[in-house]
Amino acid sequence: MRQLEHLIDLDDYKKADWDAIVSLAQDIVKDPAAYSQRCSGKIMATLFYEPSTRTQMSFQTAMLRLGGGLIGFDNPSVSSVAKGENLKDTTKVVSNYADILVIRNPMEGSAKAAALTAGCPVINAGDGGHLHPTQTLTDMLTLKMEKGRLDDLKIGVCGDLVNGRTVHSLLKALSCYKKNEFTLISTKELRLPDYIKDIITERGCKYREVFSIEDAIEDLDMLYMTRIQRERFASMEEYERQKNVFVLDNAKMSKARSDMIVLHPLPRVDEIASEVDADPRALYFKQANYGVFVRMALIICMLEDRIHSAPLLKGGIPEGKACANPKCITHTEPYLPHSFRQTGAALECEYCDSKL
Amino acid sequence: MRQLEHLIDLDDYKKADWDAIVSLAQDIVKDPAAYSQRCSGKIMATLFYEPSTRTQMSFQTAMLRLGGGLIGFDNPSVSSVAKGENLKDTTKVVSNYADILVIRNPMEGSAKAAALTAGCPVINAGDGGHLHPTQTLTDMLTLKMEKGRLDDLKIGVCGDLVNGRTVHSLLKALSCYKKNEFTLISTKELRLPDYIKDIITERGCKYREVFSIEDAIEDLDMLYMTRIQRERFASMEEYERQKNVFVLDNAKMSKARSDMIVLHPLPRVDEIASEVDADPRALYFKQANYGVFVRMALIICMLEDRIHSAPLLKGGIPEGKACANPKCITHTEPYLPHSFRQTGAALECEYCDSKL
Amino acid sequence: MRQLEHLIDLDDYKKADWDAIVSLAQDIVKDPAAYSQRCSGKIMATLFYEPSTRTQMSFQTAMLRLGGGLIGFDNPSVSSVAKGENLKDTTKVVSNYADILVIRNPMEGSAKAAALTAGCPVINAGDGGHLHPTQTLTDMLTLKMEKGRLDDLKIGVCGDLVNGRTVHSLLKALSCYKKNEFTLISTKELRLPDYIKDIITERGCKYREVFSIEDAIEDLDMLYMTRIQRERFASMEEYERQKNVFVLDNAKMSKARSDMIVLHPLPRVDEIASEVDADPRALYFKQANYGVFVRMALIICMLEDRIHSAPLLKGGIPEGKACANPKCITHTEPYLPHSFRQTGAALECEYCDSKL
Repeated sequence: MRQLEHLIDLDDYKKADWDAIVSLAQDIVKDPAAYSQRCSGKIMATLFYEPSTRTQMSFQTAMLRLGGGLIGFDNPSVSSVAKGENLKDTTKVVSNYADILVIRNPMEGSAKAAALTAGCPVINAGDGGHLHPTQTLTDMLTLKMEKGRLDDLKIGVCGDLVNGRTVHSLLKALSCYKKNEFTLISTKELRLPDYIKDIITERGCKYREVFSIEDAIEDLDMLYMTRIQRERFASMEEYERQKNVFVLDNAKMSKARSDMIVLHPLPRVDEIASEVDADPRALYFKQANYGVFVRMALIICMLEDRIHSAPLLKGGIPEGKACANPKCITHTEPYLPHSFRQTGAALECEYCDSKL
Repeated sequence: MRQLEHLIDLDDYKKADWDAIVSLAQDIVKDPAAYSQRCSGKIMATLFYEPSTRTQMSFQTAMLRLGGGLIGFDNPSVSSVAKGENLKDTTKVVSNYADILVIRNPMEGSAKAAALTAGCPVINAGDGGHLHPTQTLTDMLTLKMEKGRLDDLKIGVCGDLVNGRTVHSLLKALSCYKKNEFTLISTKELRLPDYIKDIITERGCKYREVFSIEDAIEDLDMLYMTRIQRERFASMEEYERQKNVFVLDNAKMSKARSDMIVLHPLPRVDEIASEVDADPRALYFKQANYGVFVRMALIICMLEDRIHSAPLLKGGIPEGKACANPKCITHTEPYLPHSFRQTGAALECEYCDSKL
Repeated sequence: MRQLEHLIDLDDYKKADWDAIVSLAQDIVKDPAAYSQRCSGKIMATLFYEPSTRTQMSFQTAMLRLGGGLIGFDNPSVSSVAKGENLKDTTKVVSNYADILVIRNPMEGSAKAAALTAGCPVINAGDGGHLHPTQTLTDMLTLKMEKGRLDDLKIGVCGDLVNGRTVHSLLKALSCYKKNEFTLISTKELRLPDYIKDIITERGCKYREVFSIEDAIEDLDMLYMTRIQRERFASMEEYERQKNVFVLDNAKMSKARSDMIVLHPLPRVDEIASEVDADPRALYFKQANYGVFVRMALIICMLEDRIHSAPLLKGGIPEGKACANPKCITHTEPYLPHSFRQTGAALECEYCDSKL
């Protein structure tokens, strides 16, 4: 039996596989008509256990542009889930209806759990605050198309760097390319976690930390904006004092280079002023559109076995140990085998990556 | 760059364009198979911010019958809207995914607002109580197919003529054709507004007002039924006394001509008795079906640039003025440029058409 | 005008028609590609007035695999239904948009009511606790594929046999095949109703009643598991004492024959332990997949007029009589003609089959 390819975590693939996806996406951008029947007769199921129209429509558009069909739900109260069905049963059944399955679920590790028993390839479209690999592929395609390269870039990332899933994933991926330099822009409380800083350093890249957009913007090739939620500030006074420091407007844009580009994973709320939209360097809407092309490339690579991932569970299964992360999928789906990998002295859960 | 065509208001087009759409729809009725791949490879997005299965399915069916694909939402709580995204950002992104965008939104002027920044043609599928142009095109195709003409018709319209969006739009459109005569059937409190009566007269048509269906039905070519909501009557006593006067039943139908047709925009509640459905002159279900054909024609005309509208915003943008209509989209989307046109002594908002 | 075929109740068709559907489904299983454009250009509408993702996705997948398109709703609060539209009007309009209509509605007899005025074939995808014929066709295809026959089988059915719609329908259907023997496994309170036992006997089959899975499992060709809801037990004490007797686990499976198969209509909750999923005799996920193939066959048979049903209403319409079942569709849709058939001394409602 053929080994199914899943995209749960970009780290399950080699860099050459990422490059293959991005490169195919570039080909599709050049000549989309050549791919318009590539997945004719295939069906994609989108199982969205929490709302994300943007991501769901992006995947649906990708499949339609390849000539495929669509099933799925975006409202779990309408599904068998409402009758108490577990993730495994839903996945088993739907993955036999469809040729490829896209899942978003608020529990961390849920996409991996689904992949364990799925009858078709599974794509992680966001498992809680944990991973969102197709956003990172989108960001990589945007850089490749707009800057011509993924290495030797001066990259600013701004927002809540403690909790920002898209930022973590982007920094980890771009650290694998040579000579990238990162400028981390956040409040003191919302600085990037040490373990990601360590990854950046280990992979041979540099970073610096600053506490306002203005301190960073002059020398950047790309500024990646994300939101800081009001609740994340230390206090209401702190929020009032600092909020504008992390909002991008025309005044701050006037200090940036003429070839700097601004990206954002969207949806945006207030962190980029509306006036910036008219600036030709504001590429976040174009970036959303690249998201369709990179997902087209990903679907082709998975259905045609053009990329090859590591096994879903690599570590052993220590008797009697359970993950301590309350958001881990192993708590709501008790039939799942516990599995941990040894990382230095620590055990890490193979579903949600949290340390025991 | 190509100027995109949008359908926000029928008045943005010349009568020749309406006739072109209706005429193409007639061709499609005759030979639908000839159009079954006309939009192959194209995608329609339906963004429905309030429920309207009827209208949404009608557009979806039209696109499928042309060979196209579908994305969209019908439940804004499930979309990025729920995360606070504004109309502009949703429109920008989705109009890059799709080739044509259909929007229904409860705020008046919302479809025009969406069209201002959309990357593809936009069709207004209802912006609150303001406009619903594809219903009027449906009504026109029905008349053309069933009566053979759009002029020289005796037309009765019954229901809440103060607030009836579909009736206003139909009367304005049919006033552009010669020798049409309108019979306005409503309670005294729910009579047609003066400004629409003025339009009818200016365009050279006649109208009369009556206060029951029986006073009007004998001499009509077409009776257009709509609902009067209970709350619209002056009092509960008034409602009890008058309600049957505005309900169509077999007894009233017996007084109509044998070639009179009955239309209704649907959904109906009680204003047409179930018994009337079996009457061959009851054409409201057939009319709903014509709605698919006219939308097929409209999609083709817009995607193939066969019709040409006036610019979205024509007037100047007086400094410091804001629209006073609380339902106007400019109140919930503050980034929108205010824009008014001079009409006699008054300024009219170019989004919701209300007077300043 | 062509007489439309509807699938409301399997009993409206002759056994030869069931066999034709199952046989075509077997052909499709063998060579699905040969059918991939069979319904190209056709549209299926799925009107789901209550949640059932499983059934809805199964129909949608079937139509996509035949090359057709999809419209529909799964959330009545979003539809015109929310504006007070009756079932007749919704059906009339949507059945003119689509080529085939699939309906699920909690009222008993609703699918037949819809079929009475539909403009295209209607498939009953579940009308409350009354009928669910495509589940039974799925079960029959599974037996045919996995056991090679529909007769001469030893079949166990386990669960709530009083209320189990899928079990009733399966027993009635399989009683039409020779030499089938049924083992009815339930609590004393949840035994199969007498009228179904009578049908089994009349049709020449045998049954026995037992009160635990272990009493039955040794000699079965197929065990059909369904759920017993906690509330159905006589008391909480009774539930605690008995619940495990009706749960299938590996221990019980160890007593079954090596060629016994386990089926379940899904979704399952606790009645089959997760550990059983790995047993090669556990075929409920495969069964769900057969559901797609049998629905493909059904759609073809209906669109191509390959099967022929009895008229929807056969009996007379006794003046002044109304159905007494509060869940009957005739109560919520008052325009429906009452209709009863004479069965012995009793009158049975032709919508919900309950006795007057």
